[in-house]
Amino acid sequence: MENFTFYAPTMFVFGDGEEQKTGELVRHFNGTKVLLVYGGGSVKKNGAYDAVTASLDAAGLAWEELSGVQANPRSGIVYKGIEQVREEGFDFLIALGGGSVIDTAKAIGFGACYDGDFWDFFTGRAKIKKTLPVGVVLTIAAAGSEGSDSCVITQERGNLKWGCPKTDLIRPKFAILDPRLTCTLPASQTANGAADIFAHICERYFSPTPDVALTDRLCEALMKTIVDAAPEALAHPDAYSPRADLMWAGMLAHNNSCGVGRVQDWASHQIEHELSAFYDCAHGAGLAVILPAWMEYVYPKDPMRFARFGTEVFGCEMDYARPERTAREGIRRLRVFFKSLGLPEKLQDIGGRLEDVPDMIEHRREKPNGFPFGGFMKFGPEEMEAVLRLSAE
Amino acid sequence: MENFTFYAPTMFVFGDGEEQKTGELVRHFNGTKVLLVYGGGSVKKNGAYDAVTASLDAAGLAWEELSGVQANPRSGIVYKGIEQVREEGFDFLIALGGGSVIDTAKAIGFGACYDGDFWDFFTGRAKIKKTLPVGVVLTIAAAGSEGSDSCVITQERGNLKWGCPKTDLIRPKFAILDPRLTCTLPASQTANGAADIFAHICERYFSPTPDVALTDRLCEALMKTIVDAAPEALAHPDAYSPRADLMWAGMLAHNNSCGVGRVQDWASHQIEHELSAFYDCAHGAGLAVILPAWMEYVYPKDPMRFARFGTEVFGCEMDYARPERTAREGIRRLRVFFKSLGLPEKLQDIGGRLEDVPDMIEHRREKPNGFPFGGFMKFGPEEMEAVLRLSAE
Repeated sequence: MENFTFYAPTMFVFGDGEEQKTGELVRHFNGTKVLLVYGGGSVKKNGAYDAVTASLDAAGLAWEELSGVQANPRSGIVYKGIEQVREEGFDFLIALGGGSVIDTAKAIGFGACYDGDFWDFFTGRAKIKKTLPVGVVLTIAAAGSEGSDSCVITQERGNLKWGCPKTDLIRPKFAILDPRLTCTLPASQTANGAADIFAHICERYFSPTPDVALTDRLCEALMKTIVDAAPEALAHPDAYSPRADLMWAGMLAHNNSCGVGRVQDWASHQIEHELSAFYDCAHGAGLAVILPAWMEYVYPKDPMRFARFGTEVFGCEMDYARPERTAREGIRRLRVFFKSLGLPEKLQDIGGRLEDVPDMIEHRREKPNGFPFGGFMKFGPEEMEAVLRLSAE
Repeated sequence: MENFTFYAPTMFVFGDGEEQKTGELVRHFNGTKVLLVYGGGSVKKNGAYDAVTASLDAAGLAWEELSGVQANPRSGIVYKGIEQVREEGFDFLIALGGGSVIDTAKAIGFGACYDGDFWDFFTGRAKIKKTLPVGVVLTIAAAGSEGSDSCVITQERGNLKWGCPKTDLIRPKFAILDPRLTCTLPASQTANGAADIFAHICERYFSPTPDVALTDRLCEALMKTIVDAAPEALAHPDAYSPRADLMWAGMLAHNNSCGVGRVQDWASHQIEHELSAFYDCAHGAGLAVILPAWMEYVYPKDPMRFARFGTEVFGCEMDYARPERTAREGIRRLRVFFKSLGLPEKLQDIGGRLEDVPDMIEHRREKPNGFPFGGFMKFGPEEMEAVLRLSAE
């Protein structure tokens, strides 16, 4: 186990109807004038918008709104939000939505406290020193951004999907997680979310660090729960319990409970970011394509770890004589699981084309620290290309 | 699953040698004048005292010390510490030690910010509104007090071992966990700590709340880790890895990661508090006596849950036709496990006597909300007596 710091100071308020506490929580964290950031009409249909705004009113808070955040959030709306904050002097941001809305609010928060272009933080030209407090009302179980120290935005100039450097400053003050709000999600979004959560754990689970027994088991506990809950949530969209399991798993998968003391991988995420940038596919859908291909490529490096994955998560029978067989069976069952959720299987299923691979690699090269990446196995352009090719087979 | 709030804002700094960051962390949390609270000579022998004081000096902090905290911490030293803070104007407390030292520092922290007797907070006569910040350098894996919102002190007037009402205000600002510092613990303390951690999970695991699949699995991940790591730590006292597993498990077992959304039990802890008060036994030793007796008494209420415990934690073969057999086998294996660590088995082993049972019950009655207690099964005086009698058989 390696030395580590674990810091997860966000207050999580979890359960049916808890979004009615939004105003009270803003007050608790000393907010007075709120910019409410959200996406489209879904929060109006499922009642979340009404509940949150009624709660802001009841707490006597001044508020205005910024709507129109899209999946794979773009720089345009961030610039717009920063403008709005500068003009109106908001001192608190509420993100009502999923990862895209939260990341947009985070970027508005630090962008508004900085005189230059907020993109400077992404290119490394400036360092985040101050930000506006963000509170979250989560409407989809997936990203983990509700408790995280990171934020990903696509810069429209150049189509660059980049993350800002991690900092505790941008962790939300509070996050309200009401599983009921996720019951009305389209099946595809529920499935994408499950794939995303699963991938967040895999990025931590597949580690070269020895002696991390406890976090290994925590990872397995989370993965088993997703394998159990996701099909239930799809079969019975209104059932509370599988939604609650997925939503809480989404938080724990990304607050680093499962990642402390170990080198993490994150290669699949890095490759997927290119898919989202090129094809505007949902993050979870892209991960469902890349993660099994990544596993297929890297498992020979440590077949025992993948055999353990197959045995502990998918109940494969351990082949003690040929553990690599169990390893492959685990990867196969992951594919079957993703497919059963209606997720895409191949690069082509999300509109991807092998002809674009060189461009994707070039794109990756433009990022600060573009290559190499990956903690379980170091990835250069060659490895990235190999995984993308495997994902199309 | 029930609605819940999860808030664990303590910063955990974990690993070999990390106590050298104490001064830097006090500065980070705006401390300037430190009272260093500790127990006896062990922190001088294992180098922790030297490392911490050197680090306070290096950070340019003024500091003084208060030593002599004992196991099952008593009110006397709390009064002494409060006096010291009032005279010298300390603005930060460092607890260098285990649960007893941390709880003493917490009580000094809120006692010093209050004009009356600090015991008023325990009797319910006053409510904690302000406290001095506490930082922890942990030297034993067990109590979980390093991240918790609670604190237990024995009032010498009347020999009352009571907890103060829980409040986020008393959570430590930071906690440094260096597993290396626990390598020099006597075997008995390592074993007591393991029993205490195990019990902290059981108090949450045995719940009447349905649909808590994820936390059930997290609890099992932790319990399996303790069953694996504790014998290793005893067999190879200097090995880092089992010490690290135990220490991190101790934190997770008590920061409520494993307890959210469910009714918790805590009957074994309540009964054990009487054993500690009467016989001054170590908390973990008392729990090793009470927990299996409690299980034996309550398992018929939900044999399936105890069968799951036996199967998932101790690898029992599930008897699908007679799950209560698997339940009993799980409890038997817990006794074997505790015994293998050298822990006491019976009431008599910690100097307990059945003749004292009526007095213990009377003692319990004097507490605010003394009876009933227990979330898995409601305990009145009769149930408490039954478990104490079982613990002597």
